[in-house]
Amino acid sequence: MADFLELAGRRQSCRNFASKPVEHDKIVKCVEAARLAPSGCNSQPWSLVVVENPDKVKEVAESTQLMGLNAHNSKAQAFFVVVEEPAVLMKKIGQLVDSQIFAQGDLGGFALSLCLEAESLGLGTCIIGLYDRPRLRELLGIAEDRKIFIVISVGYPESDKIREKIRKPADSFVRYV
Amino acid sequence: MADFLELAGRRQSCRNFASKPVEHDKIVKCVEAARLAPSGCNSQPWSLVVVENPDKVKEVAESTQLMGLNAHNSKAQAFFVVVEEPAVLMKKIGQLVDSQIFAQGDLGGFALSLCLEAESLGLGTCIIGLYDRPRLRELLGIAEDRKIFIVISVGYPESDKIREKIRKPADSFVRYV
Repeated sequence: MADFLELAGRRQSCRNFASKPVEHDKIVKCVEAARLAPSGCNSQPWSLVVVENPDKVKEVAESTQLMGLNAHNSKAQAFFVVVEEPAVLMKKIGQLVDSQIFAQGDLGGFALSLCLEAESLGLGTCIIGLYDRPRLRELLGIAEDRKIFIVISVGYPESDKIREKIRKPADSFVRYV
Repeated sequence: MADFLELAGRRQSCRNFASKPVEHDKIVKCVEAARLAPSGCNSQPWSLVVVENPDKVKEVAESTQLMGLNAHNSKAQAFFVVVEEPAVLMKKIGQLVDSQIFAQGDLGGFALSLCLEAESLGLGTCIIGLYDRPRLRELLGIAEDRKIFIVISVGYPESDKIREKIRKPADSFVRYV
Protein backbone atom coordinates (compact mmCIF):
# COMPACT_ATOMS: atom_id res chain seq x y z
CA MET A 1 0.00 0.00 0.00
CA ALA A 2 1.02 3.61 -0.51
CA ASP A 3 2.81 5.57 2.17
CA PHE A 4 0.50 6.04 5.17
CA LEU A 5 1.66 9.66 5.44
CA GLU A 6 -0.58 10.61 2.56
CA LEU A 7 -3.68 9.33 4.39
CA ALA A 8 -2.56 10.87 7.71
CA GLY A 9 -2.21 14.21 5.98
CA ARG A 10 -5.63 13.97 4.37
CA ARG A 11 -7.69 13.01 7.44
CA GLN A 12 -9.19 16.10 9.06
CA SER A 13 -12.20 17.00 11.18
CA CYS A 14 -15.19 17.26 8.85
CA ARG A 15 -17.50 20.13 9.79
CA ASN A 16 -19.53 20.26 6.60
CA PHE A 17 -21.36 17.02 5.85
CA ALA A 18 -23.28 16.47 2.60
CA SER A 19 -26.85 15.19 2.77
CA LYS A 20 -25.82 12.02 0.91
CA PRO A 21 -26.48 8.88 3.00
CA VAL A 22 -23.56 6.66 4.02
CA GLU A 23 -23.70 3.05 2.83
CA HIS A 24 -24.04 0.52 5.65
CA ASP A 25 -21.20 -1.61 4.28
CA LYS A 26 -18.83 1.35 4.59
CA ILE A 27 -19.89 1.78 8.22
CA VAL A 28 -19.11 -1.90 8.79
CA LYS A 29 -15.64 -1.47 7.27
CA CYS A 30 -14.94 1.41 9.65
CA VAL A 31 -15.91 -0.84 12.55
CA GLU A 32 -13.65 -3.58 11.21
CA ALA A 33 -10.61 -1.27 11.04
CA ALA A 34 -11.22 -0.24 14.66
CA ARG A 35 -11.66 -3.87 15.71
CA LEU A 36 -8.12 -4.60 14.48
CA ALA A 37 -6.52 -1.85 16.57
CA PRO A 38 -3.77 -2.89 18.97
CA SER A 39 -4.23 -2.72 22.75
CA GLY A 40 -2.24 -3.39 25.92
CA CYS A 41 -1.97 -7.18 26.39
CA ASN A 42 -4.52 -7.37 23.56
CA SER A 43 -7.14 -6.42 26.15
CA GLN A 44 -9.44 -4.67 23.63
CA PRO A 45 -11.09 -2.49 26.31
CA TRP A 46 -13.86 -1.19 24.09
CA SER A 47 -17.44 -1.50 22.96
CA LEU A 48 -19.21 0.50 20.28
CA VAL A 49 -22.70 1.73 19.56
CA VAL A 50 -23.26 2.53 15.88
CA VAL A 51 -26.16 4.90 15.34
CA GLU A 52 -27.75 4.76 11.88
CA ASN A 53 -31.49 5.07 12.59
CA PRO A 54 -32.39 8.61 11.40
CA ASP A 55 -34.42 9.50 14.50
CA LYS A 56 -31.62 8.33 16.78
CA VAL A 57 -29.01 10.10 14.64
CA LYS A 58 -30.93 13.33 15.12
CA GLU A 59 -31.04 12.87 18.87
CA VAL A 60 -27.35 12.02 19.13
CA ALA A 61 -26.54 15.08 17.02
CA GLU A 62 -28.50 17.24 19.46
CA SER A 63 -26.70 15.70 22.43
CA THR A 64 -23.38 16.89 20.96
CA GLN A 65 -24.54 20.46 20.47
CA LEU A 66 -23.39 22.17 23.64
CA MET A 67 -22.29 25.77 24.11
CA GLY A 68 -22.77 26.59 20.45
CA LEU A 69 -20.36 23.82 19.41
CA ASN A 70 -20.91 21.06 16.86
CA ALA A 71 -23.80 22.59 14.91
CA HIS A 72 -22.36 20.75 11.89
CA ASN A 73 -23.39 17.43 13.45
CA SER A 74 -26.99 18.13 12.50
CA LYS A 75 -25.96 16.97 9.01
CA ALA A 76 -24.03 13.88 10.16
CA GLN A 77 -25.40 10.67 8.62
CA ALA A 78 -24.36 8.33 11.45
CA PHE A 79 -22.52 8.31 14.76
CA PHE A 80 -20.10 5.95 16.47
CA VAL A 81 -20.22 6.05 20.26
CA VAL A 82 -17.06 4.51 21.73
CA VAL A 83 -17.32 3.11 25.25
CA GLU A 84 -14.51 2.11 27.62
CA GLU A 85 -14.75 -1.47 28.90
CA PRO A 86 -12.85 -3.26 31.69
CA ALA A 87 -9.43 -4.46 30.51
CA VAL A 88 -7.93 -7.81 31.46
CA LEU A 89 -4.13 -7.64 31.31
CA MET A 90 -1.54 -10.44 31.37
CA LYS A 91 -1.45 -11.75 34.92
CA LYS A 92 2.10 -10.65 35.72
CA ILE A 93 1.45 -7.17 34.37
CA GLY A 94 -2.01 -6.88 35.93
CA GLN A 95 -0.46 -7.52 39.34
CA LEU A 96 1.75 -4.45 38.96
CA VAL A 97 -0.48 -1.80 37.42
CA ASP A 98 -4.08 -0.64 37.40
CA SER A 99 -5.98 -2.71 34.84
CA GLN A 100 -7.21 0.41 33.01
CA ILE A 101 -3.76 2.00 32.74
CA PHE A 102 -3.52 1.48 28.97
CA ALA A 103 -7.24 1.75 28.18
CA GLN A 104 -7.49 5.42 27.22
CA GLY A 105 -4.52 5.21 24.89
CA ASP A 106 -5.90 2.02 23.35
CA LEU A 107 -9.27 3.68 22.80
CA GLY A 108 -7.52 6.59 21.12
CA GLY A 109 -5.98 4.18 18.62
CA PHE A 110 -9.33 2.43 18.16
CA ALA A 111 -11.08 5.72 17.39
CA LEU A 112 -8.36 6.95 15.04
CA SER A 113 -8.33 3.64 13.15
CA LEU A 114 -12.04 4.03 12.55
CA CYS A 115 -11.56 7.58 11.26
CA LEU A 116 -8.66 6.57 8.99
CA GLU A 117 -10.71 3.80 7.41
CA ALA A 118 -13.55 6.28 6.90
CA GLU A 119 -11.15 8.70 5.22
CA SER A 120 -9.80 5.99 2.93
CA LEU A 121 -13.41 5.30 1.85
CA GLY A 122 -14.03 8.96 1.04
CA LEU A 123 -15.97 9.70 4.24
CA GLY A 124 -15.44 12.57 6.66
CA THR A 125 -15.43 12.21 10.45
CA CYS A 126 -15.37 14.49 13.45
CA ILE A 127 -14.22 13.30 16.89
CA ILE A 128 -16.29 14.88 19.65
CA GLY A 129 -15.13 14.89 23.26
CA LEU A 130 -17.89 17.00 24.78
CA TYR A 131 -21.58 16.03 24.74
CA ASP A 132 -24.62 15.68 26.98
CA ARG A 133 -23.41 12.51 28.65
CA PRO A 134 -26.55 11.64 30.67
CA ARG A 135 -28.79 12.17 27.64
CA LEU A 136 -26.58 10.03 25.43
CA ARG A 137 -26.36 7.34 28.07
CA GLU A 138 -30.12 7.15 28.38
CA LEU A 139 -30.78 7.39 24.65
CA LEU A 140 -28.43 4.51 23.81
CA GLY A 141 -28.92 2.41 26.96
CA ILE A 142 -25.29 2.61 28.04
CA ALA A 143 -24.83 1.19 31.55
CA GLU A 144 -24.08 3.58 34.41
CA ASP A 145 -20.82 1.78 35.19
CA ARG A 146 -19.46 2.29 31.68
CA LYS A 147 -17.64 5.43 30.60
CA ILE A 148 -18.39 6.94 27.19
CA PHE A 149 -14.96 7.65 25.71
CA ILE A 150 -15.78 9.63 22.60
CA VAL A 151 -18.40 10.24 19.91
CA ILE A 152 -17.52 10.24 16.21
CA SER A 153 -19.81 11.76 13.58
CA VAL A 154 -19.57 10.55 10.00
CA GLY A 155 -20.84 11.52 6.56
CA TYR A 156 -19.65 12.43 3.11
CA PRO A 157 -17.84 15.77 3.16
CA GLU A 158 -19.54 18.58 1.23
CA SER A 159 -16.15 19.58 -0.16
CA ASP A 160 -12.96 17.62 -0.82
CA LYS A 161 -10.74 20.54 0.09
CA ILE A 162 -7.92 19.56 2.45
CA ARG A 163 -7.25 22.38 4.89
CA GLU A 164 -3.70 23.24 5.88
CA LYS A 165 -2.84 21.24 9.00
CA ILE A 166 -1.86 23.38 11.97
CA ARG A 167 0.62 21.44 14.07
CA LYS A 168 3.66 22.18 16.23
CA PRO A 169 6.85 21.96 14.13
CA ALA A 170 8.77 18.74 14.80
CA ASP A 171 11.81 20.55 16.16
CA SER A 172 9.69 22.04 18.95
CA PHE A 173 8.80 18.67 20.49
CA VAL A 174 11.17 16.02 19.12
CA ARG A 175 14.70 15.30 20.39
CA TYR A 176 17.04 12.90 18.62
CA VAL A 177 19.63 11.20 20.85
CA MET B 1 -4.74 5.51 -1.53
CA ALA B 2 -5.80 1.88 -1.05
CA ASP B 3 -8.24 0.87 1.62
CA PHE B 4 -6.73 1.53 5.05
CA LEU B 5 -8.06 -1.86 6.24
CA GLU B 6 -5.24 -3.62 4.45
CA LEU B 7 -2.62 -1.68 6.43
CA ALA B 8 -4.54 -2.06 9.71
CA GLY B 9 -4.60 -5.81 9.15
CA ARG B 10 -0.90 -5.96 8.40
CA ARG B 11 0.42 -3.95 11.36
CA GLN B 12 1.36 -6.27 14.23
CA SER B 13 3.75 -6.30 17.17
CA CYS B 14 7.19 -7.20 15.83
CA ARG B 15 9.10 -9.48 18.17
CA ASN B 16 11.82 -10.58 15.79
CA PHE B 17 13.89 -7.71 14.46
CA ALA B 18 16.53 -8.20 11.78
CA SER B 19 20.02 -6.78 12.34
CA LYS B 20 19.58 -4.44 9.33
CA PRO B 21 19.86 -0.79 10.37
CA VAL B 22 16.88 1.53 9.87
CA GLU B 23 17.45 4.55 7.65
CA HIS B 24 17.21 7.88 9.46
CA ASP B 25 14.87 9.32 6.83
CA LYS B 26 12.36 6.54 7.54
CA ILE B 27 12.52 7.38 11.25
CA VAL B 28 11.79 11.00 10.35
CA LYS B 29 8.76 9.95 8.28
CA CYS B 30 7.39 8.00 11.26
CA VAL B 31 7.75 11.12 13.39
CA GLU B 32 5.98 13.17 10.73
CA ALA B 33 2.98 10.81 10.63
CA ALA B 34 2.67 11.07 14.41
CA ARG B 35 3.00 14.84 14.28
CA LEU B 36 -0.10 14.99 12.07
CA ALA B 37 -2.27 13.01 14.52
CA PRO B 38 -5.47 14.70 15.73
CA SER B 39 -5.93 15.81 19.34
CA GLY B 40 -8.58 17.39 21.53
CA CYS B 41 -8.79 21.11 20.67
CA ASN B 42 -5.63 20.45 18.60
CA SER B 43 -3.73 20.54 21.92
CA GLN B 44 -0.99 18.15 20.73
CA PRO B 45 -0.10 17.05 24.29
CA TRP B 46 3.07 15.19 23.35
CA SER B 47 6.82 15.26 23.06
CA LEU B 48 9.08 12.57 21.68
CA VAL B 49 12.59 11.30 22.24
CA VAL B 50 13.96 9.36 19.28
CA VAL B 51 16.82 7.07 20.27
CA GLU B 52 19.17 6.12 17.43
CA ASN B 53 22.63 6.20 19.06
CA PRO B 54 23.63 2.52 19.36
CA ASP B 55 24.84 2.77 22.95
CA LYS B 56 21.64 4.52 24.01
CA VAL B 57 19.52 2.05 22.01
CA LYS B 58 21.15 -0.78 23.97
CA GLU B 59 20.37 0.91 27.28
CA VAL B 60 16.77 1.65 26.37
CA ALA B 61 16.35 -1.96 25.26
CA GLU B 62 17.60 -3.11 28.66
CA SER B 63 15.21 -0.75 30.44
CA THR B 64 12.28 -2.49 28.70
CA GLN B 65 13.39 -5.98 29.72
CA LEU B 66 11.47 -6.57 32.91
CA MET B 67 10.13 -9.87 34.26
CA GLY B 68 11.43 -11.85 31.31
CA LEU B 69 9.45 -9.67 28.87
CA ASN B 70 10.71 -7.89 25.75
CA ALA B 71 13.91 -9.86 25.16
CA HIS B 72 13.30 -9.18 21.46
CA ASN B 73 14.05 -5.50 22.01
CA SER B 74 17.77 -6.33 22.23
CA LYS B 75 17.64 -6.43 18.41
CA ALA B 76 15.60 -3.22 17.99
CA GLN B 77 17.41 -0.64 15.85
CA ALA B 78 15.84 2.46 17.42
CA PHE B 79 13.28 3.51 20.00
CA PHE B 80 10.62 6.20 20.21
CA VAL B 81 9.84 7.37 23.75
CA VAL B 82 6.49 9.17 23.83
CA VAL B 83 5.98 11.68 26.64
CA GLU B 84 2.71 13.29 27.81
CA GLU B 85 2.80 17.09 27.85
CA PRO B 86 0.37 19.63 29.35
CA ALA B 87 -2.64 20.22 27.08
CA VAL B 88 -4.17 23.63 26.49
CA LEU B 89 -7.83 23.27 25.52
CA MET B 90 -10.25 25.82 24.03
CA LYS B 91 -11.13 28.22 26.81
CA LYS B 92 -14.81 27.31 27.06
CA ILE B 93 -13.99 23.61 27.15
CA GLY B 94 -11.01 23.98 29.50
CA GLN B 95 -13.29 25.66 32.01
CA LEU B 96 -15.48 22.55 32.16
CA VAL B 97 -13.06 19.64 32.16
CA ASP B 98 -9.61 18.68 33.38
CA SER B 99 -7.08 19.88 30.82
CA GLN B 100 -5.57 16.39 30.46
CA ILE B 101 -8.91 14.65 29.91
CA PHE B 102 -8.24 13.88 26.24
CA ALA B 103 -4.45 13.50 26.49
CA GLN B 104 -4.13 9.73 26.91
CA GLY B 105 -6.46 9.04 23.98
CA ASP B 106 -4.63 11.59 21.85
CA LEU B 107 -1.30 10.00 22.70
CA GLY B 108 -2.73 6.63 21.70
CA GLY B 109 -3.52 7.99 18.25
CA PHE B 110 -0.09 9.65 18.06
CA ALA B 111 1.67 6.35 18.86
CA LEU B 112 -0.47 4.31 16.48
CA SER B 113 0.07 6.80 13.63
CA LEU B 114 3.81 6.38 14.10
CA CYS B 115 3.50 2.59 13.97
CA LEU B 116 1.25 2.68 10.89
CA GLU B 117 3.73 4.84 8.99
CA ALA B 118 6.51 2.44 10.03
CA GLU B 119 4.47 -0.49 8.73
CA SER B 120 3.80 1.24 5.44
CA LEU B 121 7.59 1.69 5.06
CA GLY B 122 8.24 -2.00 5.69
CA LEU B 123 9.33 -1.55 9.32
CA GLY B 124 8.13 -3.48 12.34
CA THR B 125 7.25 -1.89 15.68
CA CYS B 126 6.39 -3.04 19.17
CA ILE B 127 4.51 -0.83 21.64
CA ILE B 128 5.81 -1.32 25.18
CA GLY B 129 3.82 -0.19 28.20
CA LEU B 130 6.06 -1.56 30.95
CA TYR B 131 9.69 -0.50 31.46
CA ASP B 132 12.12 0.68 34.10
CA ARG B 133 10.69 4.17 34.30
CA PRO B 134 13.30 5.80 36.60
CA ARG B 135 16.17 4.37 34.53
CA LEU B 136 14.63 5.58 31.27
CA ARG B 137 13.91 8.99 32.74
CA GLU B 138 17.50 9.41 33.85
CA LEU B 139 19.01 7.98 30.67
CA LEU B 140 17.04 10.33 28.42
CA GLY B 141 16.86 13.36 30.71
CA ILE B 142 13.06 13.39 30.91
CA ALA B 143 11.85 15.88 33.53
CA GLU B 144 10.36 14.52 36.76
CA ASP B 145 7.08 16.35 36.11
CA ARG B 146 6.56 14.66 32.74
CA LYS B 147 4.93 11.26 32.38
CA ILE B 148 6.39 8.75 29.93
CA PHE B 149 3.40 7.45 28.00
CA ILE B 150 4.83 4.59 26.00
CA VAL B 151 8.00 3.22 24.37
CA ILE B 152 8.01 1.96 20.78
CA SER B 153 10.78 -0.25 19.41
CA VAL B 154 11.44 -0.31 15.69
CA GLY B 155 13.45 -2.32 13.19
CA TYR B 156 13.06 -4.36 10.04
CA PRO B 157 11.16 -7.57 10.76
CA GLU B 158 13.16 -10.78 10.33
CA SER B 159 10.15 -12.33 8.60
CA ASP B 160 7.29 -10.83 6.59
CA LYS B 161 4.79 -13.39 7.86
CA ILE B 162 1.53 -11.79 9.04
CA ARG B 163 0.19 -13.67 12.04
CA GLU B 164 -3.53 -14.28 12.38
CA LYS B 165 -5.01 -11.41 14.38
CA ILE B 166 -6.74 -12.48 17.58
CA ARG B 167 -9.58 -10.06 18.28
CA LYS B 168 -13.05 -10.15 19.76
CA PRO B 169 -15.64 -10.77 17.02
CA ALA B 170 -17.53 -7.60 16.11
CA ASP B 171 -20.89 -8.99 17.25
CA SER B 172 -19.54 -9.37 20.79
CA PHE B 173 -18.91 -5.65 21.29
CA VAL B 174 -20.79 -3.69 18.59
CA ARG B 175 -24.46 -2.74 18.68
CA TYR B 176 -26.22 -1.13 15.73
CA VAL B 177 -29.17 1.10 16.60
